[in-house]
Amino acid sequence: MIEIDLIRHVKVIGKPALYGCTDVEPIATENGNLLDYLITRQQTDKAYHNIICSPLRRCERLAQAFSSRCNLPLEVVQDFQEINFGCFDGVPFDDIPFSVEADNSAVVNSTNEKVQVVNWSKLDDFFQAPADAALPEAEVLADFYHRVTFAWQKIIVQHIGITTENKELKIPQRMLILTHGGVIRIILAHILQLDWQQASWHQKLQIGHGSLSRIVISQPYQEGEHHSFARLSSHQQYQKLHQQVTTIAMPLLDGHSA
Amino acid sequence: MIEIDLIRHVKVIGKPALYGCTDVEPIATENGNLLDYLITRQQTDKAYHNIICSPLRRCERLAQAFSSRCNLPLEVVQDFQEINFGCFDGVPFDDIPFSVEADNSAVVNSTNEKVQVVNWSKLDDFFQAPADAALPEAEVLADFYHRVTFAWQKIIVQHIGITTENKELKIPQRMLILTHGGVIRIILAHILQLDWQQASWHQKLQIGHGSLSRIVISQPYQEGEHHSFARLSSHQQYQKLHQQVTTIAMPLLDGHSA
Repeated sequence: MIEIDLIRHVKVIGKPALYGCTDVEPIATENGNLLDYLITRQQTDKAYHNIICSPLRRCERLAQAFSSRCNLPLEVVQDFQEINFGCFDGVPFDDIPFSVEADNSAVVNSTNEKVQVVNWSKLDDFFQAPADAALPEAEVLADFYHRVTFAWQKIIVQHIGITTENKELKIPQRMLILTHGGVIRIILAHILQLDWQQASWHQKLQIGHGSLSRIVISQPYQEGEHHSFARLSSHQQYQKLHQQVTTIAMPLLDGHSA
Repeated sequence: MIEIDLIRHVKVIGKPALYGCTDVEPIATENGNLLDYLITRQQTDKAYHNIICSPLRRCERLAQAFSSRCNLPLEVVQDFQEINFGCFDGVPFDDIPFSVEADNSAVVNSTNEKVQVVNWSKLDDFFQAPADAALPEAEVLADFYHRVTFAWQKIIVQHIGITTENKELKIPQRMLILTHGGVIRIILAHILQLDWQQASWHQKLQIGHGSLSRIVISQPYQEGEHHSFARLSSHQQYQKLHQQVTTIAMPLLDGHSA
Protein backbone atom coordinates (compact mmCIF):
# COMPACT_ATOMS: atom_id res chain seq x y z
CA MET A 1 0.00 0.00 0.00
CA ILE A 2 1.14 3.51 -0.75
CA GLU A 3 -0.38 6.55 0.89
CA ILE A 4 0.23 9.81 -0.93
CA ASP A 5 -0.54 13.17 0.61
CA LEU A 6 -0.94 16.09 -1.76
CA ILE A 7 -0.43 19.31 0.18
CA ARG A 8 -1.05 22.69 -1.40
CA HIS A 9 1.46 25.44 -0.62
CA VAL A 10 0.51 28.21 1.85
CA LYS A 11 -0.67 31.70 0.87
CA VAL A 12 1.78 33.73 -1.20
CA ILE A 13 3.16 37.26 -0.98
CA GLY A 14 1.54 39.47 -3.59
CA LYS A 15 -1.74 41.06 -4.60
CA PRO A 16 -4.65 38.75 -5.44
CA ALA A 17 -4.00 37.38 -8.93
CA LEU A 18 -3.77 34.18 -10.94
CA TYR A 19 -0.35 32.84 -10.01
CA GLY A 20 0.65 30.05 -12.34
CA CYS A 21 4.26 30.06 -13.52
CA THR A 22 4.97 33.38 -11.77
CA ASP A 23 7.43 32.41 -9.07
CA VAL A 24 6.08 34.16 -5.96
CA GLU A 25 7.28 33.63 -2.40
CA PRO A 26 5.15 31.90 0.23
CA ILE A 27 4.27 33.88 3.37
CA ALA A 28 7.10 32.99 5.75
CA THR A 29 5.09 32.66 8.97
CA GLU A 30 2.54 30.34 7.37
CA ASN A 31 5.28 28.31 5.74
CA GLY A 32 6.94 28.02 9.15
CA ASN A 33 3.70 26.81 10.74
CA LEU A 34 3.28 24.15 8.08
CA LEU A 35 6.91 23.09 8.55
CA ASP A 36 6.31 22.73 12.31
CA TYR A 37 3.25 20.61 11.61
CA LEU A 38 5.19 18.32 9.26
CA ILE A 39 8.13 17.94 11.66
CA THR A 40 5.77 17.03 14.51
CA ARG A 41 3.98 14.52 12.34
CA GLN A 42 7.30 13.02 11.32
CA GLN A 43 7.75 11.86 14.92
CA THR A 44 4.59 9.74 14.78
CA ASP A 45 4.00 6.36 13.14
CA LYS A 46 2.71 8.22 10.09
CA ALA A 47 6.10 9.56 9.07
CA TYR A 48 6.75 10.23 5.38
CA HIS A 49 9.39 8.27 3.50
CA ASN A 50 10.06 10.77 0.73
CA ILE A 51 9.07 14.17 -0.64
CA ILE A 52 8.27 15.37 -4.15
CA CYS A 53 7.68 19.02 -4.97
CA SER A 54 6.96 21.52 -7.70
CA PRO A 55 10.02 23.60 -8.69
CA LEU A 56 8.28 26.87 -7.76
CA ARG A 57 9.41 28.65 -4.61
CA ARG A 58 6.02 28.56 -2.89
CA CYS A 59 6.35 24.74 -2.81
CA GLU A 60 10.08 24.19 -2.92
CA ARG A 61 11.01 26.41 0.06
CA LEU A 62 9.01 24.21 2.40
CA ALA A 63 10.09 20.96 0.73
CA GLN A 64 13.78 21.86 1.06
CA ALA A 65 13.41 22.87 4.70
CA PHE A 66 11.44 19.73 5.62
CA SER A 67 13.83 17.50 3.70
CA SER A 68 16.95 18.86 5.39
CA ARG A 69 15.39 19.02 8.89
CA CYS A 70 14.14 15.42 8.74
CA ASN A 71 16.72 13.95 6.40
CA LEU A 72 14.20 12.87 3.76
CA PRO A 73 14.91 12.27 0.07
CA LEU A 74 13.54 15.11 -2.07
CA GLU A 75 12.77 15.06 -5.77
CA VAL A 76 11.78 18.22 -7.67
CA VAL A 77 9.34 17.34 -10.46
CA GLN A 78 9.03 20.01 -13.17
CA ASP A 79 5.72 18.61 -14.36
CA PHE A 80 4.08 19.32 -11.00
CA GLN A 81 4.30 23.05 -11.70
CA GLU A 82 1.05 25.01 -11.79
CA ILE A 83 -0.66 25.72 -15.14
CA ASN A 84 0.77 28.73 -17.00
CA PHE A 85 -1.91 31.45 -17.18
CA GLY A 86 -0.13 33.27 -20.03
CA CYS A 87 -0.80 37.01 -20.25
CA PHE A 88 -2.85 36.86 -17.06
CA ASP A 89 -0.17 35.13 -15.01
CA GLY A 90 0.73 37.25 -12.00
CA VAL A 91 -1.32 40.26 -13.15
CA PRO A 92 -3.19 41.60 -10.08
CA PHE A 93 -6.97 41.33 -10.50
CA ASP A 94 -7.16 45.05 -9.59
CA ASP A 95 -5.15 45.92 -12.70
CA ILE A 96 -7.40 44.01 -15.11
CA PRO A 97 -9.78 46.37 -16.97
CA PHE A 98 -13.46 45.57 -16.45
CA SER A 99 -15.16 46.92 -19.54
CA VAL A 100 -15.40 45.11 -22.83
CA GLU A 101 -14.55 48.41 -24.56
CA ALA A 102 -11.16 48.24 -22.89
CA ASP A 103 -10.53 45.15 -25.03
CA ASN A 104 -7.48 46.57 -26.71
CA SER A 105 -5.86 47.96 -23.61
CA ALA A 106 -2.53 46.53 -22.68
CA VAL A 107 -1.45 46.26 -19.08
CA VAL A 108 1.90 45.82 -17.46
CA ASN A 109 2.41 42.71 -15.39
CA SER A 110 4.42 42.28 -12.24
CA THR A 111 7.66 41.79 -14.15
CA ASN A 112 7.04 45.08 -15.97
CA GLU A 113 6.81 43.50 -19.39
CA LYS A 114 4.09 44.73 -21.65
CA VAL A 115 1.48 41.98 -21.97
CA GLN A 116 -1.18 41.23 -24.52
CA VAL A 117 -4.79 42.17 -24.34
CA VAL A 118 -6.02 41.41 -20.83
CA ASN A 119 -9.57 42.01 -19.65
CA TRP A 120 -12.25 40.56 -17.45
CA SER A 121 -14.41 39.22 -20.23
CA LYS A 122 -11.57 36.94 -21.38
CA LEU A 123 -11.08 35.78 -17.81
CA ASP A 124 -14.81 35.16 -17.39
CA ASP A 125 -14.84 33.12 -20.59
CA PHE A 126 -11.98 31.02 -19.24
CA PHE A 127 -13.71 30.44 -15.90
CA GLN A 128 -16.91 29.41 -17.68
CA ALA A 129 -15.16 26.98 -20.08
CA PRO A 130 -11.53 26.41 -19.05
CA ALA A 131 -11.02 23.63 -21.58
CA ASP A 132 -12.25 25.69 -24.54
CA ALA A 133 -11.51 29.36 -23.88
CA ALA A 134 -7.74 29.30 -23.31
CA LEU A 135 -6.19 32.53 -22.06
CA PRO A 136 -3.79 34.31 -24.47
CA GLU A 137 -0.30 32.76 -24.46
CA ALA A 138 -1.39 30.36 -21.72
CA GLU A 139 -0.95 26.62 -21.41
CA VAL A 140 -3.97 24.77 -22.79
CA LEU A 141 -5.91 22.82 -20.12
CA ALA A 142 -5.57 19.57 -22.08
CA ASP A 143 -1.77 19.93 -22.13
CA PHE A 144 -1.76 20.65 -18.41
CA TYR A 145 -3.91 17.57 -17.78
CA HIS A 146 -1.60 15.36 -19.80
CA ARG A 147 1.66 16.56 -18.29
CA VAL A 148 0.35 16.22 -14.71
CA THR A 149 -1.24 12.79 -15.15
CA PHE A 150 1.77 11.48 -17.08
CA ALA A 151 4.09 12.58 -14.26
CA TRP A 152 1.70 11.02 -11.72
CA GLN A 153 1.70 7.64 -13.47
CA LYS A 154 5.46 7.66 -13.75
CA ILE A 155 5.94 8.31 -10.04
CA ILE A 156 3.37 5.73 -8.98
CA VAL A 157 4.84 2.97 -11.15
CA GLN A 158 8.32 3.76 -9.85
CA HIS A 159 7.16 3.45 -6.27
CA ILE A 160 5.06 0.35 -6.86
CA GLY A 161 8.25 -1.11 -8.33
CA ILE A 162 10.00 -0.36 -5.08
CA THR A 163 7.32 -1.97 -2.95
CA THR A 164 7.17 -5.18 -5.00
CA GLU A 165 10.90 -5.67 -4.39
CA ASN A 166 10.34 -4.96 -0.73
CA LYS A 167 9.59 -8.14 1.23
CA GLU A 168 7.69 -6.27 3.90
CA LEU A 169 4.78 -5.28 1.74
CA LYS A 170 2.51 -4.69 4.69
CA ILE A 171 4.42 -1.58 5.73
CA PRO A 172 2.76 1.35 4.01
CA GLN A 173 4.93 3.73 2.06
CA ARG A 174 4.08 7.36 2.73
CA MET A 175 4.89 10.02 0.22
CA LEU A 176 4.40 13.78 0.46
CA ILE A 177 3.83 15.86 -2.66
CA LEU A 178 3.99 19.65 -2.23
CA THR A 179 2.26 21.24 -5.16
CA HIS A 180 -0.47 23.60 -6.45
CA GLY A 181 -4.26 23.78 -6.37
CA GLY A 182 -4.60 23.18 -10.10
CA VAL A 183 -2.28 20.17 -10.03
CA ILE A 184 -4.15 18.62 -7.09
CA ARG A 185 -7.52 19.11 -8.81
CA ILE A 186 -6.19 17.40 -11.95
CA ILE A 187 -4.82 14.39 -10.03
CA LEU A 188 -8.12 14.01 -8.15
CA ALA A 189 -10.14 14.18 -11.40
CA HIS A 190 -7.84 11.57 -12.93
CA ILE A 191 -8.25 9.10 -10.07
CA LEU A 192 -12.00 9.69 -9.72
CA GLN A 193 -12.28 9.39 -13.53
CA LEU A 194 -14.19 12.66 -13.71
CA ASP A 195 -14.55 15.00 -16.64
CA TRP A 196 -11.60 17.34 -15.98
CA GLN A 197 -12.84 19.70 -18.70
CA GLN A 198 -15.93 20.57 -16.71
CA ALA A 199 -15.87 24.14 -15.38
CA SER A 200 -17.70 23.23 -12.17
CA TRP A 201 -14.89 20.92 -11.00
CA HIS A 202 -12.51 23.89 -11.09
CA GLN A 203 -14.99 26.48 -9.80
CA LYS A 204 -16.88 24.67 -7.08
CA LEU A 205 -14.14 22.64 -5.41
CA GLN A 206 -11.89 24.79 -3.24
CA ILE A 207 -8.45 23.35 -2.50
CA GLY A 208 -7.43 25.57 0.43
CA HIS A 209 -3.88 26.83 1.02
CA GLY A 210 -1.98 24.38 3.20
CA SER A 211 -4.70 21.72 2.82
CA LEU A 212 -4.12 17.98 2.52
CA SER A 213 -5.70 15.56 0.02
CA ARG A 214 -4.96 11.85 0.32
CA ILE A 215 -4.70 9.04 -2.23
CA VAL A 216 -4.40 5.41 -1.15
CA ILE A 217 -2.99 2.97 -3.69
CA SER A 218 -2.96 -0.78 -3.34
CA GLN A 219 -1.92 -3.70 -5.51
CA PRO A 220 -4.88 -5.97 -6.11
CA TYR A 221 -2.86 -9.11 -6.82
CA GLN A 222 -1.89 -11.93 -4.46
CA GLU A 223 1.61 -12.19 -3.00
CA GLY A 224 2.46 -15.14 -5.23
CA GLU A 225 1.89 -13.07 -8.34
CA HIS A 226 4.74 -10.63 -7.83
CA HIS A 227 6.77 -12.13 -10.63
CA SER A 228 4.03 -11.90 -13.25
CA PHE A 229 3.28 -8.31 -12.15
CA ALA A 230 6.95 -7.43 -12.56
CA ARG A 231 6.86 -8.68 -16.17
CA LEU A 232 4.03 -6.29 -17.15
CA SER A 233 4.77 -2.99 -18.86
CA SER A 234 4.68 0.12 -16.67
CA HIS A 235 1.37 1.13 -18.16
CA GLN A 236 -0.15 -2.32 -17.56
CA GLN A 237 1.12 -2.26 -13.97
CA TYR A 238 -0.48 1.15 -13.48
CA GLN A 239 -3.82 -0.04 -14.85
CA LYS A 240 -3.92 -2.91 -12.33
CA LEU A 241 -3.62 -0.69 -9.27
CA HIS A 242 -6.50 0.30 -7.03
CA GLN A 243 -6.41 4.03 -6.42
CA GLN A 244 -8.82 5.66 -4.01
CA VAL A 245 -9.30 9.19 -2.77
CA THR A 246 -9.85 9.18 1.00
CA THR A 247 -9.70 12.91 1.87
CA ILE A 248 -9.86 16.15 -0.11
CA ALA A 249 -8.67 19.57 1.07
CA MET A 250 -8.45 18.92 4.79
CA PRO A 251 -7.21 22.16 6.40
CA LEU A 252 -3.93 21.69 8.28
CA LEU A 253 -3.21 25.15 9.58
CA ASP A 254 -6.37 26.92 10.72
CA GLY A 255 -7.28 24.34 13.37
CA HIS A 256 -7.72 20.69 12.49
CA SER A 257 -10.83 20.76 14.59
CA ALA A 258 -12.33 22.59 11.57
CA MET B 1 -22.96 32.83 4.65
CA ILE B 2 -23.96 29.35 5.73
CA GLU B 3 -21.44 26.65 6.55
CA ILE B 4 -22.82 23.13 6.47
CA ASP B 5 -20.88 20.18 7.81
CA LEU B 6 -21.92 16.75 6.58
CA ILE B 7 -20.66 14.15 9.04
CA ARG B 8 -20.97 10.44 8.31
CA HIS B 9 -22.01 8.21 11.22
CA VAL B 10 -19.37 6.03 12.94
CA LYS B 11 -18.87 2.32 12.28
CA VAL B 12 -21.86 0.10 12.99
CA ILE B 13 -22.38 -3.14 14.92
CA GLY B 14 -22.76 -6.05 12.54
CA LYS B 15 -20.94 -8.13 9.97
CA PRO B 16 -19.60 -6.39 6.87
CA ALA B 17 -22.59 -5.82 4.56
CA LEU B 18 -24.41 -3.17 2.57
CA TYR B 19 -26.38 -1.34 5.22
CA GLY B 20 -28.97 0.91 3.63
CA CYS B 21 -32.40 0.96 5.26
CA THR B 22 -31.41 -1.78 7.75
CA ASP B 23 -31.45 0.05 11.07
CA VAL B 24 -28.19 -1.04 12.72
CA GLU B 25 -26.68 0.44 15.88
CA PRO B 26 -23.50 2.53 15.84
CA ILE B 27 -20.54 1.28 17.90
CA ALA B 28 -21.06 2.97 21.27
CA THR B 29 -17.44 3.86 22.04
CA GLU B 30 -16.90 5.48 18.65
CA ASN B 31 -20.19 7.33 18.92
CA GLY B 32 -19.08 8.57 22.35
CA ASN B 33 -15.79 9.81 20.95
CA LEU B 34 -17.53 11.72 18.18
CA LEU B 35 -19.96 13.19 20.72
CA ASP B 36 -17.01 14.37 22.84
CA TYR B 37 -15.46 15.96 19.77
CA LEU B 38 -18.68 17.81 18.92
CA ILE B 39 -19.22 19.02 22.49
CA THR B 40 -15.65 20.35 22.66
CA ARG B 41 -16.06 22.09 19.32
CA GLN B 42 -19.31 23.62 20.54
CA GLN B 43 -17.30 25.65 23.07
CA THR B 44 -15.30 27.37 20.31
CA ASP B 45 -16.32 30.19 17.97
CA LYS B 46 -17.29 27.54 15.42
CA ALA B 47 -20.32 26.30 17.34
CA TYR B 48 -23.21 24.85 15.36
CA HIS B 49 -26.61 26.54 15.41
CA ASN B 50 -28.74 23.53 14.53
CA ILE B 51 -28.62 19.82 13.71
CA ILE B 52 -30.30 17.77 11.02
CA CYS B 53 -30.10 13.98 10.92
CA SER B 54 -31.21 10.84 9.13
CA PRO B 55 -33.90 8.90 11.01
CA LEU B 56 -31.70 5.79 11.24
CA ARG B 57 -30.20 4.91 14.63
CA ARG B 58 -26.58 5.10 13.49
CA CYS B 59 -27.11 8.83 12.87
CA GLU B 60 -29.95 9.71 15.19
CA ARG B 61 -28.41 8.36 18.42
CA LEU B 62 -25.56 10.86 18.16
CA ALA B 63 -27.79 13.70 16.96
CA GLN B 64 -30.16 13.25 19.91
CA ALA B 65 -27.31 13.10 22.43
CA PHE B 66 -25.55 16.17 20.99
CA SER B 67 -28.83 18.09 20.75
CA SER B 68 -29.80 17.47 24.37
CA ARG B 69 -26.29 18.02 25.77
CA CYS B 70 -25.81 21.33 23.95
CA ASN B 71 -29.43 22.44 23.76
CA LEU B 72 -29.49 22.62 19.96
CA PRO B 73 -32.57 22.38 17.73
CA LEU B 74 -32.75 19.01 15.99
CA GLU B 75 -34.71 18.10 12.88
CA VAL B 76 -34.99 14.50 11.65
CA VAL B 77 -35.19 14.46 7.84
CA GLN B 78 -36.57 11.21 6.39
CA ASP B 79 -35.10 11.97 2.98
CA PHE B 80 -31.55 11.92 4.36
CA GLN B 81 -31.83 8.15 4.91
CA GLU B 82 -29.36 5.94 3.09
CA ILE B 83 -30.32 4.31 -0.22
CA ASN B 84 -32.35 1.09 0.18
CA PHE B 85 -30.27 -1.84 -1.14
CA GLY B 86 -33.34 -4.09 -1.47
CA CYS B 87 -32.66 -7.83 -1.19
CA PHE B 88 -29.00 -7.13 -0.40
CA ASP B 89 -29.71 -4.71 2.43
CA GLY B 90 -28.11 -5.96 5.63
CA VAL B 91 -27.15 -9.37 4.14
CA PRO B 92 -23.58 -10.12 5.31
CA PHE B 93 -21.15 -10.32 2.38
CA ASP B 94 -20.05 -13.71 3.76
CA ASP B 95 -23.55 -15.09 3.17
CA ILE B 96 -23.74 -14.05 -0.48
CA PRO B 97 -23.07 -17.00 -2.82
CA PHE B 98 -20.13 -16.48 -5.15
CA SER B 99 -20.85 -18.68 -8.14
CA VAL B 100 -23.09 -17.76 -11.04
CA GLU B 101 -24.56 -21.28 -10.86
CA ALA B 102 -25.91 -20.37 -7.45
CA ASP B 103 -28.11 -17.87 -9.25
CA ASN B 104 -31.35 -19.37 -8.04
CA SER B 105 -30.33 -19.81 -4.45
CA ALA B 106 -32.24 -17.82 -1.90
CA VAL B 107 -30.63 -16.60 1.28
CA VAL B 108 -32.08 -15.47 4.54
CA ASN B 109 -31.34 -11.94 5.59
CA SER B 110 -30.70 -10.59 9.06
CA THR B 111 -34.42 -10.20 9.75
CA ASN B 112 -34.91 -13.88 8.85
CA GLU B 113 -37.16 -13.18 5.92
CA LYS B 114 -36.60 -15.16 2.79
CA VAL B 115 -35.13 -12.84 0.20
CA GLN B 116 -34.96 -12.89 -3.56
CA VAL B 117 -32.08 -14.13 -5.62
CA VAL B 118 -28.88 -12.72 -4.13
CA ASN B 119 -25.44 -13.38 -5.57
CA TRP B 120 -22.12 -11.73 -6.21
CA SER B 121 -22.56 -11.28 -9.93
CA LYS B 122 -25.62 -9.07 -9.32
CA LEU B 123 -23.65 -7.07 -6.79
CA ASP B 124 -20.70 -6.72 -9.18
CA ASP B 125 -23.05 -5.50 -11.91
CA PHE B 126 -24.41 -2.88 -9.52
CA PHE B 127 -20.92 -1.70 -8.52
CA GLN B 128 -19.91 -1.41 -12.17
CA ALA B 129 -23.02 0.52 -13.22
CA PRO B 130 -25.03 1.65 -10.16
CA ALA B 131 -27.38 3.82 -12.23
CA ASP B 132 -28.31 1.01 -14.64
CA ALA B 133 -28.03 -2.31 -12.81
CA ALA B 134 -30.42 -1.77 -9.88
CA LEU B 135 -30.40 -4.44 -7.17
CA PRO B 136 -33.61 -6.51 -6.79
CA GLU B 137 -36.28 -4.67 -4.78
CA ALA B 138 -33.84 -1.81 -4.18
CA GLU B 139 -34.28 1.92 -4.56
CA VAL B 140 -33.21 3.10 -8.02
CA LEU B 141 -30.16 5.42 -7.95
CA ALA B 142 -32.04 8.14 -9.84
CA ASP B 143 -34.81 8.14 -7.21
CA PHE B 144 -32.22 8.32 -4.45
CA TYR B 145 -30.51 11.25 -6.20
CA HIS B 146 -33.79 13.12 -6.56
CA ARG B 147 -35.01 12.63 -2.99
CA VAL B 148 -31.66 13.68 -1.49
CA THR B 149 -31.13 16.75 -3.69
CA PHE B 150 -34.76 17.83 -3.28
CA ALA B 151 -34.41 17.65 0.51
CA TRP B 152 -31.11 19.53 0.29
CA GLN B 153 -32.61 22.38 -1.74
CA LYS B 154 -35.55 22.66 0.63
CA ILE B 155 -33.31 22.95 3.68
CA ILE B 156 -30.98 25.46 2.06
CA VAL B 157 -33.77 27.75 0.89
CA GLN B 158 -35.37 27.62 4.36
CA HIS B 159 -32.11 28.66 5.97
CA ILE B 160 -31.30 31.32 3.42
CA GLY B 161 -34.76 32.66 4.20
CA ILE B 162 -33.77 32.85 7.85
CA THR B 163 -30.53 34.68 7.13
CA THR B 164 -32.16 37.29 4.88
CA GLU B 165 -34.51 38.21 7.74
CA ASN B 166 -31.54 38.30 10.08
CA LYS B 167 -30.00 41.76 10.29
CA GLU B 168 -26.57 40.43 11.23
CA LEU B 169 -25.82 38.77 7.94
CA LYS B 170 -22.11 38.70 8.56
CA ILE B 171 -22.43 36.11 11.30
CA PRO B 172 -22.11 32.73 9.62
CA GLN B 173 -24.77 30.14 10.29
CA ARG B 174 -23.35 26.72 11.04
CA MET B 175 -25.41 23.64 10.48
CA LEU B 176 -24.51 20.02 11.20
CA ILE B 177 -26.03 17.21 9.14
CA LEU B 178 -25.49 13.66 10.45
CA THR B 179 -26.08 11.27 7.63
CA HIS B 180 -24.75 8.43 5.44
CA GLY B 181 -21.92 7.91 2.95
CA GLY B 182 -24.26 7.58 -0.02
CA VAL B 183 -26.19 10.71 0.90
CA ILE B 184 -22.98 12.74 1.30
CA ARG B 185 -21.66 11.54 -2.07
CA ILE B 186 -24.92 12.57 -3.76
CA ILE B 187 -24.90 16.06 -2.19
CA LEU B 188 -21.25 16.56 -3.23
CA ALA B 189 -21.97 15.44 -6.80
CA HIS B 190 -24.94 17.81 -6.93
CA ILE B 191 -22.92 20.84 -5.81
CA LEU B 192 -19.91 20.00 -7.97
CA GLN B 193 -22.33 19.36 -10.87
CA LEU B 194 -20.76 15.97 -11.53
CA ASP B 195 -22.27 12.98 -13.25
CA TRP B 196 -23.73 11.15 -10.23
CA GLN B 197 -24.47 8.11 -12.42
CA GLN B 198 -20.78 7.46 -12.92
CA ALA B 199 -19.59 4.33 -11.10
CA SER B 200 -16.14 5.79 -10.34
CA TRP B 201 -17.62 8.56 -8.17
CA HIS B 202 -19.14 5.89 -5.91
CA GLN B 203 -16.20 3.46 -6.11
CA LYS B 204 -13.15 5.69 -5.91
CA LEU B 205 -14.20 8.30 -3.38
CA GLN B 206 -14.15 6.95 0.16
CA ILE B 207 -16.27 8.84 2.68
CA GLY B 208 -14.81 7.49 5.93
CA HIS B 209 -16.86 6.76 9.06
CA GLY B 210 -17.01 9.83 11.27
CA SER B 211 -15.53 12.04 8.52
CA LEU B 212 -16.51 15.64 7.83
CA SER B 213 -17.29 17.23 4.46
CA ARG B 214 -18.00 20.96 4.29
CA ILE B 215 -20.18 23.09 2.03
CA VAL B 216 -20.02 26.89 2.13
CA ILE B 217 -23.01 28.77 0.75
CA SER B 218 -23.16 32.48 0.13
CA GLN B 219 -25.68 34.88 -1.32
CA PRO B 220 -24.18 36.66 -4.30
CA TYR B 221 -26.42 39.73 -4.14
CA GLN B 222 -25.81 43.08 -2.45
CA GLU B 223 -27.39 44.00 0.85
CA GLY B 224 -29.77 46.46 -0.84
CA GLU B 225 -31.28 43.66 -2.89
CA HIS B 226 -32.81 41.66 -0.04
CA HIS B 227 -36.32 42.64 -0.95
CA SER B 228 -36.09 41.56 -4.57
CA PHE B 229 -34.43 38.26 -3.50
CA ALA B 230 -37.27 37.64 -1.07
CA ARG B 231 -39.78 37.99 -3.93
CA LEU B 232 -38.16 35.20 -5.98
CA SER B 233 -39.53 31.68 -5.90
CA SER B 234 -37.67 29.18 -3.70
CA HIS B 235 -36.19 27.54 -6.76
CA GLN B 236 -35.00 30.87 -8.18
CA GLN B 237 -33.47 31.79 -4.82
CA TYR B 238 -31.65 28.46 -4.76
CA GLN B 239 -30.28 28.98 -8.27
CA LYS B 240 -28.78 32.33 -7.26
CA LEU B 241 -26.70 30.93 -4.41
CA HIS B 242 -22.98 30.24 -4.59
CA GLN B 243 -22.27 26.79 -3.23
CA GLN B 244 -18.72 25.54 -2.81
CA VAL B 245 -17.19 22.39 -1.44
CA THR B 246 -14.24 23.23 0.80
CA THR B 247 -13.41 19.84 2.39
CA ILE B 248 -14.32 16.23 1.67
CA ALA B 249 -14.04 13.31 4.12
CA MET B 250 -11.73 14.86 6.69
CA PRO B 251 -11.23 12.21 9.41
CA LEU B 252 -12.37 13.44 12.84
CA LEU B 253 -11.70 10.46 15.06
CA ASP B 254 -8.44 8.75 14.12
CA GLY B 255 -6.24 11.77 14.73
CA HIS B 256 -6.85 15.05 12.94
CA SER B 257 -3.17 15.13 12.28
CA ALA B 258 -3.98 12.63 9.51
